[in-house]
Amino acid sequence: MVMFSKEQFAKLMDSTLLKPSATREEIIRFCEEATRYHFASVVVFPFWLPVVRRAMQESDVKIATVIGFPFGASGRSVKLYEARTAITNGANELDIVINIGALKSGEHNIVESEIKELVDTSRMAGLTQDAKRTVLKFILECHYLTSDEKKIACEIIRDSGADFIKTSTGTAPTGATVEDIRLIRDVVGPDLGVKAAGGIRTTENAMEMLDAGASRIGTSNAAAIVDGYVPEDYLESAGRRRRG
Amino acid sequence: MVMFSKEQFAKLMDSTLLKPSATREEIIRFCEEATRYHFASVVVFPFWLPVVRRAMQESDVKIATVIGFPFGASGRSVKLYEARTAITNGANELDIVINIGALKSGEHNIVESEIKELVDTSRMAGLTQDAKRTVLKFILECHYLTSDEKKIACEIIRDSGADFIKTSTGTAPTGATVEDIRLIRDVVGPDLGVKAAGGIRTTENAMEMLDAGASRIGTSNAAAIVDGYVPEDYLESAGRRRRG
Repeated sequence: MVMFSKEQFAKLMDSTLLKPSATREEIIRFCEEATRYHFASVVVFPFWLPVVRRAMQESDVKIATVIGFPFGASGRSVKLYEARTAITNGANELDIVINIGALKSGEHNIVESEIKELVDTSRMAGLTQDAKRTVLKFILECHYLTSDEKKIACEIIRDSGADFIKTSTGTAPTGATVEDIRLIRDVVGPDLGVKAAGGIRTTENAMEMLDAGASRIGTSNAAAIVDGYVPEDYLESAGRRRRG
Repeated sequence: MVMFSKEQFAKLMDSTLLKPSATREEIIRFCEEATRYHFASVVVFPFWLPVVRRAMQESDVKIATVIGFPFGASGRSVKLYEARTAITNGANELDIVINIGALKSGEHNIVESEIKELVDTSRMAGLTQDAKRTVLKFILECHYLTSDEKKIACEIIRDSGADFIKTSTGTAPTGATVEDIRLIRDVVGPDLGVKAAGGIRTTENAMEMLDAGASRIGTSNAAAIVDGYVPEDYLESAGRRRRG
């Protein structure tokens, strides 16, 4: 078990606002909150990137957006175009949904070549923009996958040059589970990023995911989760959990 | 009240398979069913268009796909690219989600110019492909909108050259309602298409929507809805409904 300071804990949060009904004003307030809390990133829809880029000029918080979201079925060339456009519009991190339908059909070559092309194209586009590395997270949407499908997808993403595997979009009937975090961490080893997302609403939820091996938390409740974090309590509760 | 033959009734159905976990085999079976039933169209994710195009070569059923789905927030250039690519890949009809966030922000010029550009670009792409007119449906996602926002969006779509206004994506907490169909029909007059979608599972549901002014039904239960349709019963039940 790792013990985080409050600042380190906040830097594990991808603060997420993916409500289609959110207004410009809500987006801007959301960015201001993220800047105050020093989260890892803000996650918004691609349409809002120019607004967020302006709002985050003085911020140490990264800008993330979603690609092929949430169904992963928009097709390869559309995902590639969406990724390039997002990077041009200021995205530092991309959360990309894999081709779930192809995976469920056993067509692993389609899943793999799409991911590899997205990694190559995004790396290139990121270099052109500001010589910084674009952080790439691929979303499994575990809800729809068998254990074998999860493992195969994890191996493909691990070997693609991507940075993170993310459990869920937050739009499926179920989100992140401790079991899925363990499974993913088991396949990818200690070095790749693992992002738990979907249904994480409390500090305790977030702690369970970190304990299980997550290295990033995606949540629409990031401020409350950080507010609720007291490093000493965490130590105690982790101790209790281990004692069982 | 209009009385439809069984054949006419089937031709009002957009048979929809928008499950991210659907496999190639399920997509092909779904196309075969649609061909047998002579629905208006099949609605699938863009990724599956090449598969559906092959499966529907001998069919009188149109091929439809979704653009900017389901949140409408992928940004204008991505929607335009997705629409052009879909038409190139064989889509005859596009169900496009409007920019909900811009509408909720009161930025009607953004909503309007995006819709107009999508209409112009899709018409052009359709002509290049096969000189046939691409049918364009714009989705409001009524769940998130006030009555005023619905009316404004309907006026914009009505004046854009589009073919249909569609109530819902089927992914929001609520779908089509009789009240929304009446509101839309009231704004657009008798000539524009109105598509009821989201949560329509029974023949009775579908009939209520048609009675209220819908001219197309989007449903993932089209075969059962058509199987349950007996023109004489419809006349009777419509009579009962009117008597109160």
